Amino acid sequence: MSLELSKRIQRLKTSPVRKLVPYGEEATKKGIKIHHLNIGQPDIDTPRVFFDAISKYEGKVLKYEHSAGIMPLREKMKSYYDRLGLNYSIEDILVVNGGSEALQFIFTALFDEGDEVLIGEPYYANYNSFFDVLNIKRNAIRTYAEDGYHFRSLEDMESMITPNTKAFMFSNPSNPTGVVCTKEELDNIAYLAKKYDLYIISDEVYREFVYGENKAISFGTYKELEDRVIIIDSISKRYSACGARIGCVVSKNKEFMSAIFRQCQARLSVPTLEMVGAAALYDLPDNYLESARLEYKNRKNILFAELSSMEGVVTREPEGAFYSFVKLPILDGEDFAIWLLSNFNINNETVMFAPGEGFYATEGLGKNEVRICYAIESEDLKRAMTILRLGLKEYKRLKGI
Amino acid sequence: MSLELSKRIQRLKTSPVRKLVPYGEEATKKGIKIHHLNIGQPDIDTPRVFFDAISKYEGKVLKYEHSAGIMPLREKMKSYYDRLGLNYSIEDILVVNGGSEALQFIFTALFDEGDEVLIGEPYYANYNSFFDVLNIKRNAIRTYAEDGYHFRSLEDMESMITPNTKAFMFSNPSNPTGVVCTKEELDNIAYLAKKYDLYIISDEVYREFVYGENKAISFGTYKELEDRVIIIDSISKRYSACGARIGCVVSKNKEFMSAIFRQCQARLSVPTLEMVGAAALYDLPDNYLESARLEYKNRKNILFAELSSMEGVVTREPEGAFYSFVKLPILDGEDFAIWLLSNFNINNETVMFAPGEGFYATEGLGKNEVRICYAIESEDLKRAMTILRLGLKEYKRLKGI
Repeated sequence: MSLELSKRIQRLKTSPVRKLVPYGEEATKKGIKIHHLNIGQPDIDTPRVFFDAISKYEGKVLKYEHSAGIMPLREKMKSYYDRLGLNYSIEDILVVNGGSEALQFIFTALFDEGDEVLIGEPYYANYNSFFDVLNIKRNAIRTYAEDGYHFRSLEDMESMITPNTKAFMFSNPSNPTGVVCTKEELDNIAYLAKKYDLYIISDEVYREFVYGENKAISFGTYKELEDRVIIIDSISKRYSACGARIGCVVSKNKEFMSAIFRQCQARLSVPTLEMVGAAALYDLPDNYLESARLEYKNRKNILFAELSSMEGVVTREPEGAFYSFVKLPILDGEDFAIWLLSNFNINNETVMFAPGEGFYATEGLGKNEVRICYAIESEDLKRAMTILRLGLKEYKRLKGI
Repeated sequence: MSLELSKRIQRLKTSPVRKLVPYGEEATKKGIKIHHLNIGQPDIDTPRVFFDAISKYEGKVLKYEHSAGIMPLREKMKSYYDRLGLNYSIEDILVVNGGSEALQFIFTALFDEGDEVLIGEPYYANYNSFFDVLNIKRNAIRTYAEDGYHFRSLEDMESMITPNTKAFMFSNPSNPTGVVCTKEELDNIAYLAKKYDLYIISDEVYREFVYGENKAISFGTYKELEDRVIIIDSISKRYSACGARIGCVVSKNKEFMSAIFRQCQARLSVPTLEMVGAAALYDLPDNYLESARLEYKNRKNILFAELSSMEGVVTREPEGAFYSFVKLPILDGEDFAIWLLSNFNINNETVMFAPGEGFYATEGLGKNEVRICYAIESEDLKRAMTILRLGLKEYKRLKGI
């Protein structure tokens, strides 16, 4: 043998979004303020109850807690699902270190090397980290800017299924497209899951952030799919608590939940204090989430008005989450992003977004698309849009487009 | 396909230690107090500075922090290694969610399915969770109660190496045996690592807890092995902060550290507040650790005096950590453990320990051995030893031994 690293780890590449980081650091060094439209980091304050609950913690010894999560938190998660009309018991809920641990545990439980996952593209780029380490192939269903990234048809989805397809996966509302799936789309997924015996992995962390007519329907409402529906949830976006790293895996499939629990045992427990704080968040009145929703809706309106008035930009009104996926009248979104960071500013301010390519499984797609996150406050967002508009104009001029 | 789970997850069994939990719960229901000698959960208070630092946290939004960990914590970890005479830079240190995430990331980075790890048995049972999911084979070097579980010889170790052996791994001081390796044992490992091009994974989370003549020598002191030494560290035991889930991976191998960092990025970040608290722990004066060491040393003395005076018990004086691995004059440690929980008590008190079998890779070994953790306070420990002594006598009588 030699000191070579494993093949699994060699499949795990640096995130394409990270490529921009050095350019951002350079810009910051030059004294340029960057408006970060590139990451899903809400700027809304984390509710004080989170910190207050932690301050009041009275334990003397910070012990390993139960691997499934502390009971008060699981109980409050259950009550939260009750309020949504989702009938989960405490045993159906396991607390994990954020949505990312949920992804890792779920994929490990379902997929062997070479197994395949049915997924619309573009999709959340970080899924790839886990797909790649575990060597899971993607059956990517292409969606288009012109359709607002909704699925085209049942046939279109069905055509990507192979004998090795093990699960369908999506986020709804969607990161990165802002799509909220229609009832018909969900029914199609349900039909395919039944027909081909697929698990459904439903990432519902943006559940409350919907702005149009379509409410985000949880797959937990599909009684007949109880044996195959797996829900990923997290407090990160819902309560502006990304740094708490608290999420959960929810399912009524007992064998599957035992597989998740054994992985929970292997990592012993989730940090105690973060669970104490998270439990307090679930006690917030419903109007907390409604006010967050209205704040994001307002930002969405600003973003959409701006983007749809830029020449050559293909965009649809975002329906949920706090992202818009946009087709720009240029050839290379990454090159444009780097140019904005390196060569463009308005009064020493510039913008950073995520190039679209990293959100596609199919090579070559997404080059002229970008993901814009509107989790920053309205006035900054307006300035960022002005910079983007002027930057785009100048970039097109320079490139002779 | 079907709704079957993956083969990887089917390899991950419920921890053998967990088998005892229902019996423990039954005993508790009957009003029996259990002295927990089964888990490495220190009962020493977590230093107040941990909670105080968290209370003083002034951020309004709990954001994703840098995937490598917050800089103040990495700086303080570096200073800690400086004080130990280990010459690590900040780039050589990545913060992870406890030692268990360190294990997962390191094994993923080094081993493909079917690769092999050289390891003394008995070893920390939870390594198996990650070995099993990742399908890593164990080249187990047997050690014996009669030798105090030290390695017998270089030849003995070398004989287990195969062409697929990728790394040597151990914990030093050892969970579960309490062994602190001698300089000669470390030199032998170093020799083999060079000769067969092996990584060395050195789990040093009990570094300070040594009681005899052998100090725990860090593999970080072996300059010539810089390219292959990987250190696992954690605040869990050192600062009685198991529930904080803060540890680190340390290595001077840059390609390897890049592989760990990419995994850190995939899970985004470690919880913010726990890192803030952990940073404060590293500021504690050295006499904090010395007083913890003296407390454990006192308990070790109690335990050893008791165990070595029990008829037929084979035990050596523990040298480090807070475990003793013990050979009992019975046939089946698990049966004895269950019997103690179900059928034996003194004034409504009984004891729980970890059966030895789960700490061996080789089937059939360890049946008459047990791991006893002495992280409970002296008076309780004394009572627990009395119960164990009387229980053992009664159990032997019943079994006709």
